[in-house]
Amino acid sequence: MRKIMILGGDGFCGWPTALHLSARGDDVTILDNFSRRDIDAELGIQSLTPIAEPDDRIAAWEEVSGRRLKMVRLDIAREPDRLMGLLDVARPDVIVHFAEQRAAPYSMRSADHKRYTVDNNVSGTHNLLATLAALELETHLVHLGTMGVYGYDGDGLEIPEGYLDVTVKDRDGRQFDRSVLYPTRPGSVYHLTKSIDQLLFQFYAQNDGLKITDLHQGIVWGTQTEQTRLHPALINRFDYDGDYGTVLNRFLMQAVAGHPLTVHGTGGQTRAFINIQDTVHCVALAIDNPPKGGERVKIINQVAEVHRVRDLAQLVAEVTGAEVEFVDNPRREAAENDLAVSNATFRALGLDPILLRDALLDETLETADKYLDRHDPDRIPATALWTSGNRPGIPKRVPGPRERRRAVS
Amino acid sequence: MRKIMILGGDGFCGWPTALHLSARGDDVTILDNFSRRDIDAELGIQSLTPIAEPDDRIAAWEEVSGRRLKMVRLDIAREPDRLMGLLDVARPDVIVHFAEQRAAPYSMRSADHKRYTVDNNVSGTHNLLATLAALELETHLVHLGTMGVYGYDGDGLEIPEGYLDVTVKDRDGRQFDRSVLYPTRPGSVYHLTKSIDQLLFQFYAQNDGLKITDLHQGIVWGTQTEQTRLHPALINRFDYDGDYGTVLNRFLMQAVAGHPLTVHGTGGQTRAFINIQDTVHCVALAIDNPPKGGERVKIINQVAEVHRVRDLAQLVAEVTGAEVEFVDNPRREAAENDLAVSNATFRALGLDPILLRDALLDETLETADKYLDRHDPDRIPATALWTSGNRPGIPKRVPGPRERRRAVS
Repeated sequence: MRKIMILGGDGFCGWPTALHLSARGDDVTILDNFSRRDIDAELGIQSLTPIAEPDDRIAAWEEVSGRRLKMVRLDIAREPDRLMGLLDVARPDVIVHFAEQRAAPYSMRSADHKRYTVDNNVSGTHNLLATLAALELETHLVHLGTMGVYGYDGDGLEIPEGYLDVTVKDRDGRQFDRSVLYPTRPGSVYHLTKSIDQLLFQFYAQNDGLKITDLHQGIVWGTQTEQTRLHPALINRFDYDGDYGTVLNRFLMQAVAGHPLTVHGTGGQTRAFINIQDTVHCVALAIDNPPKGGERVKIINQVAEVHRVRDLAQLVAEVTGAEVEFVDNPRREAAENDLAVSNATFRALGLDPILLRDALLDETLETADKYLDRHDPDRIPATALWTSGNRPGIPKRVPGPRERRRAVS
Repeated sequence: MRKIMILGGDGFCGWPTALHLSARGDDVTILDNFSRRDIDAELGIQSLTPIAEPDDRIAAWEEVSGRRLKMVRLDIAREPDRLMGLLDVARPDVIVHFAEQRAAPYSMRSADHKRYTVDNNVSGTHNLLATLAALELETHLVHLGTMGVYGYDGDGLEIPEGYLDVTVKDRDGRQFDRSVLYPTRPGSVYHLTKSIDQLLFQFYAQNDGLKITDLHQGIVWGTQTEQTRLHPALINRFDYDGDYGTVLNRFLMQAVAGHPLTVHGTGGQTRAFINIQDTVHCVALAIDNPPKGGERVKIINQVAEVHRVRDLAQLVAEVTGAEVEFVDNPRREAAENDLAVSNATFRALGLDPILLRDALLDETLETADKYLDRHDPDRIPATALWTSGNRPGIPKRVPGPRERRRAVS
């Protein structure tokens, strides 16, 4: 039985991962500062699915599984001393780290949201690494990164798993071969923090021998997993708003609400996708296949398939009968890009992914349609503008992240 | 007359830069949180040279030059709102950013010092960028980076100025040419923060069109400049302790104190150097040659020459008659490395650097020997250990950075 800590284990990916690992017999402790629930309150939105209070989640899981999850309220970015004390006592075999602000649009709302995202994500991840190094723990750290760190160059080169083999020629024609971290081109402050994480991991693996796996995940779709379906209080989040709702969820919501699917720009952006059930399986596979100590960071692409956004809209339209509408793109990004991604590692470990074409209808009926009466149609459009220009002078004070920070410290 | 803000303008590089720019007629405002003076107090050390209080520095400069420097106490990492308000009013043409914790050994003292260095440097730099973007200022940001972000691969490739032209081949033999940020291999948490800065700059230049020059500086040696020599209260810092004293200063101090020069490991580490007077000139040249808006970050190597540490010791020994002694290396780094660095940009702009061989004796007499009676021989050796292993369990609480943080917030 492995001792596993899930940082951010109350969130969209963290919660079903905690249940899956508990179900297979691991000893699971959740650490969470519940910031995702606080952000719901800040934005005045809620998950389409009625998520239960943390205590009720824990009780429901014990009821259906006979297993006990531990849950600790802790902010890894702002409570480094408590984190150090807790890890020194618990000495987990594995830490799965989901505890970062994870919405690109939210990270771009204002200067304050940019600062919150950087301070929260970078300090939190670095505190964790500095603590593991200081305590000399053998813990395997599994971190959820994102495909977005690679950027979307669109020159057709298949994106490798983390490292790029390059050749450099000097002026004298001498040739140098190197294997380097894939040069990142993040497109939002959120993605920027995940690129920064890569440098943090590289350093602590090299200097302190920490064992780290970084999972570069595609856009996650789907809501329920084998475990979250077992009890109404175990239900997972479904975000459909302009900040936290990813593109597929917004399409599904628009479709069942009888609105056209709004595609940003030409919809030529190609992105990688994975179902939440596969996320959970992949994290378990990553745990079971750690890097050896002294190796460089193990980077795995956690993706199942790629789609152009307009093709995705077409797919949803076919399943639901909705119309497709093209609107201005609020993001600063390439209008069209190709994307080819290697997912060789998880394929070799047996990943047989759930594909959108096969499971989209179930997801629509099980989630979007079922909880339609809980949705707020005004919250579907994306509102965050990517570039400056929307706020002359001193930006309007946005209370969210700032107030949460005060509440904790 | 340019309006220039110097962040960290009370420090070792910032102070002489402020004086140089003021002397040539720029309108200079210094922002500083005086953390470097606080760290002196934390470590129980002092600059070998008797540096004056900030107010006395300003008064002395007005006395000798007839020019008035403004000085504001501000912490860019922890007072983002004040920073925003101040920049909105001042709207400087240029910001020169030295306001980061800059000692590698200090950054490695403990988990707390690692966290302080990351939180201070990353949050501070990011706050600045988010503020410039929000205010839509045309300000040219000149940042002091370090050669240390490149790492020391030692395969003989000349280090270019920031970007590396690479060729990638895919499995089908197709070839892709890209120009990428030089893949970094920082060797300390301090250097790690400067690597992170590069990603921050890349993002804000790309997303918001910020005009940024990043100067990758070698190890700075020397103490006085044309301006700091004009009055005793203008004298610059000379650090010789194991944390802030760079290798040449420690050698000079050992030499004039009659101790052997202690070389870490084989002394085969090759490093780049530049004199403080040239630092000041280079920053002025960078200000006068900004990138255009919409360009990628302009990265310039700010170095004059390279030396192996043991050759440097030999040079100091020749000038001073000291002995050389080899001791264990507390750092985790390559024992021997080659280093070739391009400094084409500043050469083309007219840099004719002061070389160690020519000016070492003057520096010895003007500084190390002159203030010898102020030195504390116990503080010369490096004490920070690079790898974990020195602190089982919860690290001893080190009061420094933590207390400073509380004092400010």
